[in-house]
Amino acid sequence: MSQTKMILDLDTGVDDALAIAYALGSPEIELIGITGTYGNVLMEQGVHNSLAILDLLGHPEVPVFRGIDHSRTTSGFEVLEISAFIHGKNGIGDVEIPPSPRTADPRSAADFIIESVHTYGKDLVYVPTGPLANLAAAIERDPSIKTKIGNVVLMGGALTVPGNVNPFTEANISQDPEAAHLVFTSGIPTVMVGLDVTLQTLLTYKETARWRDLQTAAGVFLADMTDYYIKAYETTAPHLGGCGLHDPLAVGVAVDPSLVGTHAINLMCETEGPSRGRTIGDPARLNDPKKNTEVCLTVDVNRFLHEFMSRITGLATRA
Amino acid sequence: MSQTKMILDLDTGVDDALAIAYALGSPEIELIGITGTYGNVLMEQGVHNSLAILDLLGHPEVPVFRGIDHSRTTSGFEVLEISAFIHGKNGIGDVEIPPSPRTADPRSAADFIIESVHTYGKDLVYVPTGPLANLAAAIERDPSIKTKIGNVVLMGGALTVPGNVNPFTEANISQDPEAAHLVFTSGIPTVMVGLDVTLQTLLTYKETARWRDLQTAAGVFLADMTDYYIKAYETTAPHLGGCGLHDPLAVGVAVDPSLVGTHAINLMCETEGPSRGRTIGDPARLNDPKKNTEVCLTVDVNRFLHEFMSRITGLATRA
Repeated sequence: MSQTKMILDLDTGVDDALAIAYALGSPEIELIGITGTYGNVLMEQGVHNSLAILDLLGHPEVPVFRGIDHSRTTSGFEVLEISAFIHGKNGIGDVEIPPSPRTADPRSAADFIIESVHTYGKDLVYVPTGPLANLAAAIERDPSIKTKIGNVVLMGGALTVPGNVNPFTEANISQDPEAAHLVFTSGIPTVMVGLDVTLQTLLTYKETARWRDLQTAAGVFLADMTDYYIKAYETTAPHLGGCGLHDPLAVGVAVDPSLVGTHAINLMCETEGPSRGRTIGDPARLNDPKKNTEVCLTVDVNRFLHEFMSRITGLATRA
Repeated sequence: MSQTKMILDLDTGVDDALAIAYALGSPEIELIGITGTYGNVLMEQGVHNSLAILDLLGHPEVPVFRGIDHSRTTSGFEVLEISAFIHGKNGIGDVEIPPSPRTADPRSAADFIIESVHTYGKDLVYVPTGPLANLAAAIERDPSIKTKIGNVVLMGGALTVPGNVNPFTEANISQDPEAAHLVFTSGIPTVMVGLDVTLQTLLTYKETARWRDLQTAAGVFLADMTDYYIKAYETTAPHLGGCGLHDPLAVGVAVDPSLVGTHAINLMCETEGPSRGRTIGDPARLNDPKKNTEVCLTVDVNRFLHEFMSRITGLATRA
C-alpha cells in the first residue's frame, strides 16, 4: 500500500495526543514529522510532549521540530487559564509519562514543511491542529509551496456555529488571526475541520475504559489523559455529554475525506473589531468559481468513532 | 395541475416587486394573498405598492393585508436612509404607477396567515421577504399552526458570509431579531434563503432592457424600477457587477427547491451584543438529529436566472 506522508502541526495537548495516536494507528499514513506550535501549551512543552508520546506509542523514529512560539502580533505567549484547565498544566491531563531521551530536530518547523512539500508534493498532507503560524511562515519564506502542497486539513475555525473562545472565534484561529487570514487567502487548498463538526464527535468515559482495560502503558496513559479532558468538558460544556474530538477528527478526515460532508467556499479570517478571529466567507470572492476551502459541515459520527476507537485501540494494544 | 398556495409577506421595495412578478408568472403557484410588513418601506407604503403592482401586473384578485408595522422591541419604525437609497423614496425606484382603487383586506396579516394554515395546511407555502414579525405574531396568537404549516421559505439572514447591515446581520433579520429567534426556535420547518446565495444571483441592465423592449406598461415599469436598484448597487456593492435578486430567489426556491443546495441545521438569532441579528447554529441543538432549517448555500445561478427571466418576461408580455 502506498502511504500518504503526513505532517502533524501540534500544540500538544490532550486531543493533539489523540491525533498522534490516530495517525500512528492508521496504516494508510506515514507520519514523517511533527512540527511544534503554541496554544494549548507553550511550544517547548508541546515539543516535549510530542517526543514523549511518540516514544510511548512505539514510534521514536518520528522527528519533532520546534516551531514559532507566539503570534505575529504579540511579543510572546502565555497559556490561557482555560487551556490549562482543559488540558492540564503539562498539556496531557497532568498525567506523568517518561520524558524522551531524544531532542527536537535542529531544523525549524517552517523549513521542514518547505522541504517536505518539495520532496513529496501532492503525496503530502499537512494537518495543523493549532494556530496556523508555522504554515504562514513557510508560505512567506517560500511562496512556491502554495502551488505544490497537496492538501492541508486543519482543525480550527467555526463557520456555522459560534466560536469557543467567544461567540466569534475558535481557539486555534484566535491565537493568530493574521496567520489564518494569510493561509485562507493564499490560494492553498484547505479542508477546514472546525467546531461545526468537531463538537458533534464526542468521546465518553465508556470508550476510555476500553483503553485502560488493555493494561498497556499506552492504553492507561490514553485513558487517564482523556478522562482529565472529559472531566473538564463536564464544566466547560456540560450540555455536550462528552469531550469534543477536535484534533483527531482532522486526522480522520485527512485519512478518509468521505467521513465528512463539505461546503466549498473562499474564506477570510477577520482581524479587526469584536469578531477578530472569525472565519467567514469572503464577500469579495463569493462569486469566484474557484473555491480554496472545503468547510466540513456534516460528519458520519458513528463511522468516525468506530475508526477512532479501532485505530487507537489497536495501536495501544501493540504499544 | 395542482397549484401550491403561496402567501408573500413583503416590505414592498424593488426586489419584493420582482418577487410578486415571479410568483404571478409561475403556473405552479396560486398567490392567495400578500401580507404587509415594514423594512424597505413603511408597512402602509408597502401595502400601497403591493396593491398597485398586483393591478398593474393583471392580478387585482389577490388580496393584500396590513401587518405589523414595527418590531417588538421598538415603539415605531422609520425607513433607514440606506433603504431609501436602494429602493427609492416610494420603495419602487421612485417610478410612478397608478394607485390601486382597492384597499387592504380588513383582516390582519397574522389572522390571514393563521386562517390559511388551517385551510391549506401542507399545501401552503409562506414566503416572508422582510422581518419575521407577522409570522412570529401568528405563532404567538395560534401556536397550533407550528405543526400544521407546510413550508416557510424566507429571504433573510446570512450564515457563511457577513451581513449587509453590519458584519453580523442581514437587513431583514436585523429589523426584528427577537421575531426571527422565535421563528427559528419554534420547530417550524424553514428554508433560509440568505445572503449566502442571494448575492450570487445578479441581474444587470442587459436583462432589464429585455423588459423595456416589450413596450408593455408592466415591462417598462419593471425595467425602470429595477434599473434604479441596479444603479444603487453600483454605489453600495460595486464589486458585484449587478443587483442581488434577494426576494425573487426565495420565490424561486419555494417553486423549485432543486435550484439550491442546502445544509440542515438548527438556527438561533442572536439578540444581544455587537452581533445582534446574527443567524448562526444553535450550539444547544447542534447534536439534535431533528433539524428545523435548511440553509441555502449553493444555487444553480444560470438555471435560476433563466427561470426568473422567462417567468417575469412572460408575465410582463401578457400584462
